[in-house]
Amino acid sequence: MNALGNSVADPLYQQLADTLEEMIQHRSLRPGDRMPSLRQFSRQRRVSVPTALQAYAMLEDRGLLEARPKSGFYVRASRADAVRPPSSGSPLPRVTDYSKLDPLQAILASQNAPDLIPLGVALPDPKILPQARMARELSAAARRHSVQCSTYDVPPGCAALRGELARRSLDWGCALNPEDFILTNGCTEALSLALHAVCQPGDTVAVESPTYFGLAALLQELGLKALPIPVDAERGVNLDVLEQALRKTRVAACAFIASFHNPVGSCMSDEDKRRLCTLLARHSIPLIEDDIYGDLQHTGPRPRCLRAFDDNVILCSSFSKTLAPGLRLGYIAPGARWKDRVMRLKQTTTLANVGLPSFALAAYLREGGYERYLRKVRGIYRQQVNHMRELLAHALPEGIALSRPRGGFVLWCELPPQLDAVQLSRSAQRVGISIAPGPLFSPRGEFANFMRINCGYRIDAKIEGAVMTLGKLAKDLLRRKG
Amino acid sequence: MNALGNSVADPLYQQLADTLEEMIQHRSLRPGDRMPSLRQFSRQRRVSVPTALQAYAMLEDRGLLEARPKSGFYVRASRADAVRPPSSGSPLPRVTDYSKLDPLQAILASQNAPDLIPLGVALPDPKILPQARMARELSAAARRHSVQCSTYDVPPGCAALRGELARRSLDWGCALNPEDFILTNGCTEALSLALHAVCQPGDTVAVESPTYFGLAALLQELGLKALPIPVDAERGVNLDVLEQALRKTRVAACAFIASFHNPVGSCMSDEDKRRLCTLLARHSIPLIEDDIYGDLQHTGPRPRCLRAFDDNVILCSSFSKTLAPGLRLGYIAPGARWKDRVMRLKQTTTLANVGLPSFALAAYLREGGYERYLRKVRGIYRQQVNHMRELLAHALPEGIALSRPRGGFVLWCELPPQLDAVQLSRSAQRVGISIAPGPLFSPRGEFANFMRINCGYRIDAKIEGAVMTLGKLAKDLLRRKG
Repeated sequence: MNALGNSVADPLYQQLADTLEEMIQHRSLRPGDRMPSLRQFSRQRRVSVPTALQAYAMLEDRGLLEARPKSGFYVRASRADAVRPPSSGSPLPRVTDYSKLDPLQAILASQNAPDLIPLGVALPDPKILPQARMARELSAAARRHSVQCSTYDVPPGCAALRGELARRSLDWGCALNPEDFILTNGCTEALSLALHAVCQPGDTVAVESPTYFGLAALLQELGLKALPIPVDAERGVNLDVLEQALRKTRVAACAFIASFHNPVGSCMSDEDKRRLCTLLARHSIPLIEDDIYGDLQHTGPRPRCLRAFDDNVILCSSFSKTLAPGLRLGYIAPGARWKDRVMRLKQTTTLANVGLPSFALAAYLREGGYERYLRKVRGIYRQQVNHMRELLAHALPEGIALSRPRGGFVLWCELPPQLDAVQLSRSAQRVGISIAPGPLFSPRGEFANFMRINCGYRIDAKIEGAVMTLGKLAKDLLRRKG
Repeated sequence: MNALGNSVADPLYQQLADTLEEMIQHRSLRPGDRMPSLRQFSRQRRVSVPTALQAYAMLEDRGLLEARPKSGFYVRASRADAVRPPSSGSPLPRVTDYSKLDPLQAILASQNAPDLIPLGVALPDPKILPQARMARELSAAARRHSVQCSTYDVPPGCAALRGELARRSLDWGCALNPEDFILTNGCTEALSLALHAVCQPGDTVAVESPTYFGLAALLQELGLKALPIPVDAERGVNLDVLEQALRKTRVAACAFIASFHNPVGSCMSDEDKRRLCTLLARHSIPLIEDDIYGDLQHTGPRPRCLRAFDDNVILCSSFSKTLAPGLRLGYIAPGARWKDRVMRLKQTTTLANVGLPSFALAAYLREGGYERYLRKVRGIYRQQVNHMRELLAHALPEGIALSRPRGGFVLWCELPPQLDAVQLSRSAQRVGISIAPGPLFSPRGEFANFMRINCGYRIDAKIEGAVMTLGKLAKDLLRRKG
């Protein structure tokens, strides 16, 4: 059984470790600082020496402390802290048709191969997911709702779940009603419906550069062109470039990930979100928001959705990054203007959803289990992202740059300019490791020396070893180029 | 609990009733014939008199016998037998764009309203579905496969289910492999993927006239035009008309329901199926087959799929008409030529399926429960269709025509020419009854005086009453016209 989402409170040593980690993150404890001795620390915090030791050991595992023989524990010098954030894409956007995506299909197709160490996907560790709890909810719902499960759950879909989503929308800065939602087969179908609803083949859609490759594939299949707008590693999409581009280029829609961008990890400020909404409203351009990582801030309050700033934003999301990718629990809140069109498209192209997972999720959300679970995983992903930053900073060649996401679980990594990430990806795959090379994320085949690294998995010896191997492969490639 | 699919054998009186029904159907017993007395019959069949009485009573319920006081049981004069089959659509096909479908959206939208007596849908009675059994399978699969259920079931989807489909394909006259299948969100997504894969917006698709309105809606959303080919009530699509039309009109694909057509109920002969495949192969036109009713023949062997006659046929189907509409258990076997394109479209537009129902269905199919279940429901639908034909022949005005489907559970009914089925549908809806008026099934708004009647539901007093009311409404409308 998976204890997550079930345990009442963390053990004492973990609470201590979390507190210390925050002090290190806020630089109250700095690299090189000597930690209090175990005896001192146990007196300060009024805990036993074994508990203090467990807390220190945990921080050692997280790569934050190092034990020096006969001297005690020290805050580890962070290499990641010295690394700059990755650079943005071209500030001169040009309409493009994703034609360069094709040769990368093989790499894309292999991302999910179960025998690869999954640094290339953007997926949570199944061990972190509340699988046992969801299995119980599904099993109970199958029995309790046997009639509803066997008949069509016609759009907009399960009313109980839409009710829970409406309640949750307060947390996103919105105040949506159950009628505002249409349930979908994951966020992918939500995005597909949104693009299909607002665009005609041949239209141009403004997207972030880099952006989620699933969006790229969708544009390609729907016969749409892309206008790539650069994303800043901290602030998100560059609004100045967007504003200029809109003066020159006719755009049918924008499709953006404002909170915890994939792959960059940026989160737009409320001020920028408002500015974006105002800008697009002025041009009457529909804004499609992919909010799939929105619930996964590492600390502090949940970011607000773009939808919180404009009722016309077409909000798309799902529980695939938080609860269970396989249950396809997606939704779209298309706003009054597009609702009928999206409903009809949904009815036409898939007719109905599988009802069972919706019933199970509605029960889970009603009981409040989800909030408890989120509190746990936010901390886990924060640690894993930080830990992975350290590992990469140690393993990869000099001169790399790393994103510092404040939510989600992917890192965007810029390699030395001579290094070809597609080549690195092929080498890595041969030794059983997947990475997602930069060109996958670009409509123009940019980001040749970038890669996205998944931090959704527990960092165990296998993952650590994979990062070390990746570093070795990168250095080998670099040597051969040099 | 639902006994279907669980009981080992039918009770004796039901076996007797079924045998007698077949004799009546094959006209070994003719309308007006006097049945043997109960005493005689019990001696002939070596059963007790009460059992003989139960068998006769059952046939009375099915509308096949009538008891005349002091005289005994007689084979009821069938009104339905005197009714001619409905006429075909226009033999002069013309490319059309479904523009007339729009005003009917409201009627379509209300088809699934749970408070209407469901004569308009094409759905099995939930009471006939093996809900309890499927609930047990789902519940067990949720626990047994908790890890797989929470992670992506990426296309082509659950290998166990594809294995079972491959085994079943022998029964369709095919010999498919697990790799030939891609699992989909119902037959609707399968058709959507097929059309999207083989057509470009603006292309023309040959469809049957009438045809399933979901197909019409799909063509409309994908920006495709229709070339309607008339369907004969017995033989299916008119191949002579198709052959002529293909000489004049450039067609990007054909989308046909060869076995137990919706709404007409026709089933093409093997000879015609082969002729169709040869014709389209000669023109290099992709053939999309909707085989959703293929498992539901009323008697005899299962009809062969079009795919049995040509490996390039794109076979689309699901278990929505047989096991559970709500589980969205669809599949597509696109053939070698289109497989990659369909896979990519599936990945792009919905990414993955909900895995849980696939695991549950695979277990159910492996145990052989499905075949037992099919044997039961084939008989049930045969009886219900025949019973409904009698009811309609009695209730509706003179001069109607009725299809005589040999599979599935829908009837196609031609009303007197002055009668407007859309108007009848509106009147019926006001008194709580849904029907599906003919123009829904036509790209050109043809079939103004036709309707489709669902026979998927157990014919109880409520359904009988609804048919009587429908007849009264039709006669009222007719009087007002006259």
